[in-house]
Amino acid sequence: MKSPILEFIQSLHARYLAVDEGRVADYIPELSKANPKAFGICVATRDGHLYEAGDTRQGFTIQSISKAFTYGLALEDRGEDHVLSRIGVEPSGEAFNAISLQEGSGKPFNPMINAGAIATCGQVLRKDGASRFDRIAEYLSRCAGQSLSIDEAVYRSESATGHRNRAIGWMLRNFNILDEDPDEILEAYFQQCSLRVTCTDLAVMGATLANQGINPISGERAIAPEFVDNVLGVMATCGMYDWSGEWIYRVGLPAKSGVGGGILAVLPGQLGIGVFSPPLDGQGNSVRGIKVCMDLARDLSLHLFNPSAVPQTALRLSYTGNQMMSRRRRPAMDFHYLKRFGERTRVLELQGPLIFSTFEPVVRTLVRHAPYCQQVVMNFRHVVNVDPVSMRLLAEVRSRLESNGIRLLCCHAQRFRRPLLAAGIPAGAIFDTDDEALEDCETFLLAGAAEVAGRSPDAVPLSECDLLSSLSPDELAIMEAAAETRAFAPRQSVIESGGDADEWFVLTAGTVEVSLPETGNRRRRLDVLSAGMSFGEMAFIDGSKRSADVIATEPSTCRVWSRAWFDSLDQSHPALKIHLLHQLSRQLSARLRQANLEISTLKS
Amino acid sequence: MKSPILEFIQSLHARYLAVDEGRVADYIPELSKANPKAFGICVATRDGHLYEAGDTRQGFTIQSISKAFTYGLALEDRGEDHVLSRIGVEPSGEAFNAISLQEGSGKPFNPMINAGAIATCGQVLRKDGASRFDRIAEYLSRCAGQSLSIDEAVYRSESATGHRNRAIGWMLRNFNILDEDPDEILEAYFQQCSLRVTCTDLAVMGATLANQGINPISGERAIAPEFVDNVLGVMATCGMYDWSGEWIYRVGLPAKSGVGGGILAVLPGQLGIGVFSPPLDGQGNSVRGIKVCMDLARDLSLHLFNPSAVPQTALRLSYTGNQMMSRRRRPAMDFHYLKRFGERTRVLELQGPLIFSTFEPVVRTLVRHAPYCQQVVMNFRHVVNVDPVSMRLLAEVRSRLESNGIRLLCCHAQRFRRPLLAAGIPAGAIFDTDDEALEDCETFLLAGAAEVAGRSPDAVPLSECDLLSSLSPDELAIMEAAAETRAFAPRQSVIESGGDADEWFVLTAGTVEVSLPETGNRRRRLDVLSAGMSFGEMAFIDGSKRSADVIATEPSTCRVWSRAWFDSLDQSHPALKIHLLHQLSRQLSARLRQANLEISTLKS
Repeated sequence: MKSPILEFIQSLHARYLAVDEGRVADYIPELSKANPKAFGICVATRDGHLYEAGDTRQGFTIQSISKAFTYGLALEDRGEDHVLSRIGVEPSGEAFNAISLQEGSGKPFNPMINAGAIATCGQVLRKDGASRFDRIAEYLSRCAGQSLSIDEAVYRSESATGHRNRAIGWMLRNFNILDEDPDEILEAYFQQCSLRVTCTDLAVMGATLANQGINPISGERAIAPEFVDNVLGVMATCGMYDWSGEWIYRVGLPAKSGVGGGILAVLPGQLGIGVFSPPLDGQGNSVRGIKVCMDLARDLSLHLFNPSAVPQTALRLSYTGNQMMSRRRRPAMDFHYLKRFGERTRVLELQGPLIFSTFEPVVRTLVRHAPYCQQVVMNFRHVVNVDPVSMRLLAEVRSRLESNGIRLLCCHAQRFRRPLLAAGIPAGAIFDTDDEALEDCETFLLAGAAEVAGRSPDAVPLSECDLLSSLSPDELAIMEAAAETRAFAPRQSVIESGGDADEWFVLTAGTVEVSLPETGNRRRRLDVLSAGMSFGEMAFIDGSKRSADVIATEPSTCRVWSRAWFDSLDQSHPALKIHLLHQLSRQLSARLRQANLEISTLKS
Repeated sequence: MKSPILEFIQSLHARYLAVDEGRVADYIPELSKANPKAFGICVATRDGHLYEAGDTRQGFTIQSISKAFTYGLALEDRGEDHVLSRIGVEPSGEAFNAISLQEGSGKPFNPMINAGAIATCGQVLRKDGASRFDRIAEYLSRCAGQSLSIDEAVYRSESATGHRNRAIGWMLRNFNILDEDPDEILEAYFQQCSLRVTCTDLAVMGATLANQGINPISGERAIAPEFVDNVLGVMATCGMYDWSGEWIYRVGLPAKSGVGGGILAVLPGQLGIGVFSPPLDGQGNSVRGIKVCMDLARDLSLHLFNPSAVPQTALRLSYTGNQMMSRRRRPAMDFHYLKRFGERTRVLELQGPLIFSTFEPVVRTLVRHAPYCQQVVMNFRHVVNVDPVSMRLLAEVRSRLESNGIRLLCCHAQRFRRPLLAAGIPAGAIFDTDDEALEDCETFLLAGAAEVAGRSPDAVPLSECDLLSSLSPDELAIMEAAAETRAFAPRQSVIESGGDADEWFVLTAGTVEVSLPETGNRRRRLDVLSAGMSFGEMAFIDGSKRSADVIATEPSTCRVWSRAWFDSLDQSHPALKIHLLHQLSRQLSARLRQANLEISTLKS
């Protein structure tokens, strides 16, 4: 099945292939050699998927599109205040090559006009032996995800004819916007404009801006996250010269074009667009490029203010500790206690990016539930990122919960360990899985329960084991006599998956885990059993192979009965067998009820 | 527990309470009477929650903030093209009261300067006996969620001193930007500016813009969805006059201020902010208002381009029809068939807003799975809204699936019935619940299965019923003899919840549903049973009360055994009892395995 999105991009390409308006730039001889028929469209998603149509891998010079990125580098090198003191961010309403500087200060209106772009270039530092241009080229290459090189012919042509830009450079030097003579800065500027890119490069560079500054294909950090919004901001208000107001109103995408025929547009947080077609309109924008961007924005509702693009609440699911229990199987008395008091545990499953607007409903829910809670678990499994604001709010929430005597636990949160620790969540309250966090909550609840606190969990006589507790002394004696006793050291295997299920186990001391191997050395825990619980009974009953491993996690003792003995009960002690099967059915039935409750909780 | 967010808003209020910069507007005498100490902050979330600090319920006149909303009304009355032909959307770089019209056309630069606002007012139509002002007042009142009234003293004062605006009005008339003499239009404009609002009203009006034009408190549609982005667009580029570029760069919130001391700011899709404090700076903006907006934007990362605010994929969960089965309990042979071939059913659970960027990964997933699918279910339970683009993509997906012979079903989708039908989803493929859609998929799979197709599902002899199929003829005869036969008409009750569980049922013909009453006449379906299945066995085994109702959905026949008879088997036919209990344990065990698989699927 072919992607309808790819087909749409291809149809857009076909729609404008025949357009022959506009003229290829000819202010320098090299640019006029461009093929007016070349035409490519590429959309790059925030996760690095590319939709391409036409000549998306053909090289051309980046020209003014570089200005937006060099501005990001200048901000990283000098900081926002310093850069703003040299270059404004107001739309000038003038053409790209105007020598328009603000009265008095000589500040260029914004970094997107040539004056501002040259001033921006001058802000970039030389570092560790790398020239200004080296650093610019590296920066843009990181954004594109591949090493960009200069089109030497275009560069020489630009440099040979760049008299107007030299005039601008000296004017900037006159106002001390440039700290040094402009020659080298201008060469770096000409070189920057002569970097060769493809349509796909532009889309990926746009997606890098859309993706918080991380190149979605290489996974590399290309732009410091704190300056992504500044770059997008100047693109939004100044990217299209004196057409900027109408561009944002109609198209709604921060964008930048270059006289090489490229246009780069960004839907922040979502995707990058690259279009390449050399013929330009009177304002120096690619004719097809503008048409494609307008159609893309309209047909796919990519407008910055698309009213349907509402961020979802970060609250994915909310339930209590008796609607969903840990996989630790506990004796009936404990189970019933937890069924009754588990509602004192509140689990909030979070999702998506945590920012103010998505986390605020979570805080509201917590404020509402707090009076009924003894502990709160936040599950980060589906969280994609956390911003500092949400972590500050979490810190506030944590300290308020604490002063109300309520524990806060986090799980599936290892990726966010550092910000969580900074928010005051103790390391001991950060769990790998929700199951472990739930188990901890249950253990905490049980520790406070008078009626179960006296029992030692370490060794349990057969008469108190769950499936056997209602047997008569005679029946227990029969069981005792038939049972083999096996002791296991920590990490010793009790049952191996794939084996025959010809034994039935009751754990009388210690703890065992039922688990499956995962990638690497990790195991997925299916069940944990405390002393007093039986295991292996499901495969024993239905005659299937063992479906999981059982491993002792501490010194453990099991009593084991064989299938041969169990079968022989039909004749020798049918009442005992009926009793055992009845108890087993009851237990399976209780577990199935709980499992069904958990399914409906998860589907709610 | 107190909300840390409310506390933050209160601390922000405390931070600037003592500021005494700025001067109350005095260009008309009435405004100069405002109390300079009055100060309120309100944040309204997209779902209508209010965080308020200070004088949020004190009235003041809306002044220029009204311009943004009247612009929305003008667009609704005349359409975008007509309005754009009269009023531009370019930042003018000039003060609010400049008589600046574009050369030649006489078009005001944008609707936020007075000239543009008066021209906008002239675009509003009289309708159904309602005057221009009546319609403006109604429109703004819907945005605020309450009836706004005029401050008569301010209005008279504005009208008495509005000479400059009259000059602008006649200039617009001169250029035919106004179609009629300006007197009445100007009065409507003065009245509009004199509407009394509170700080909370402003926040709610902002939240209405953030919420796709629907007032989040009243739930009423206030602004047509197609014009929300236009209003936000002009606020973003022209809302703060010649400071607009820097405002968007630094604060990043579309905003509008009024000389009454109000500022309204919007984070599109997220929230609205209202601040009220009469003392103004030299540009006519509330001094405290600007400080509060800047702090809110910075401290809560509310910037339009906040790089963390990425929309989540709409794909919440993806699984196959054997990882999650319907609640229809079927005979073992069917169950095993579905376990084997259920992977031909692919379920995609969707969430959040469906827009291009969130739906695109869903399309990509579908394209990848299509070769292995016979049917696809899309679950809309967690979808908050669908935009036309996502529905167009869905229509494309549907037709491609169809031409590949793959069925597409939708569930939990009644809210989106109309757009789904428009996307070509047949009414019969739209199901209320995921369970019904899954059941339909299973039935479809089974209908194509040679090995199960021959069996009539309508009447099943006891010897073929699931729990009894391995009994010997003698044992079956004992069961037959002891069973009572009961027939039920459609909708007749078989078991009522709360009753004693002293009977065990096998359905030999027809279909019954296990369900619980929900609000209204609706019932939540827990299980559906076909002929051949047993039911009521869980409560029968563990002696609890009946936990749900069982109702026949078609003419049905049951065989029923009493607890007394079942108990008597211990003595009379222990081998039969062992056999029954063993079969029951096997069945419970199989259901528990499936339930555990479903839990881990849902938690994945």
